[in-house]
Amino acid sequence: MEQWWREGIPLVAAMDARIEKLDDRELIVCAPLAPNRNHMATAFGGSLLALATLTGWGIAKLLAGETATHVVIQRSQMKFLRPVNGQLRARCRWPDDKERKRFDKSLARKNRARIDLEITLFSDTTKAAEFSGRFAALRDTGYG
Amino acid sequence: MEQWWREGIPLVAAMDARIEKLDDRELIVCAPLAPNRNHMATAFGGSLLALATLTGWGIAKLLAGETATHVVIQRSQMKFLRPVNGQLRARCRWPDDKERKRFDKSLARKNRARIDLEITLFSDTTKAAEFSGRFAALRDTGYG
Repeated sequence: MEQWWREGIPLVAAMDARIEKLDDRELIVCAPLAPNRNHMATAFGGSLLALATLTGWGIAKLLAGETATHVVIQRSQMKFLRPVNGQLRARCRWPDDKERKRFDKSLARKNRARIDLEITLFSDTTKAAEFSGRFAALRDTGYG
Repeated sequence: MEQWWREGIPLVAAMDARIEKLDDRELIVCAPLAPNRNHMATAFGGSLLALATLTGWGIAKLLAGETATHVVIQRSQMKFLRPVNGQLRARCRWPDDKERKRFDKSLARKNRARIDLEITLFSDTTKAAEFSGRFAALRDTGYG
């Protein structure tokens, strides 16, 4: 997925965002401070928003599964809690089984499904921001 | 300000964001699609969030005035309305006189002030997303 991001989204390469961890519990995407800094040598808010968007999109895309399913972000909220002066890290946990079943069922029946995901941002290991995003998966049925 | 952005925030250069207009009514910041695209050849949501953040930050920084005043984003909300398949454009209008007076007064009295700004995102000239951001200005008094 990381390679696919870098090829398809130039900003991912500019941010030097990388997958630090992907297991059955969570996805963690990290990026070094240098290419994401602002004038105060802390992380640019736009970089934190982009990293959170990417991380949530990653989980939603993995949930949706097939390559013929587009995943788009529909809305987001962010609370910036403290400046990030270390490595940028964004963590998204998998939704619970109930949520995943609801998502799968909707995608199978209606060729579309929505999921709300919570992404936590860290400065190294210190919590720095909270992001909520709503993502929609749309299966390309070939019928327009 | 554009030069200052590009020097201090590497992501601004990576996005190729430029000030299209700054007058007594509004600030418009634009960026070409190519460096901000995703796999679907539309704008990456993270790029739209970063452009909106930059534009709101620009107005807040100009309101705050002095170089010794830091401006930070505290929270944001975004509604993505339609894909952006043209130039990315973000517009922020100046707050009204009443809001500006309240902001100036708070900064003068308390060395800090907040302002809520609405940023509209366009695909070329078509409205594509709505961003609300709360920005805080903090004057460095030299007293820590």
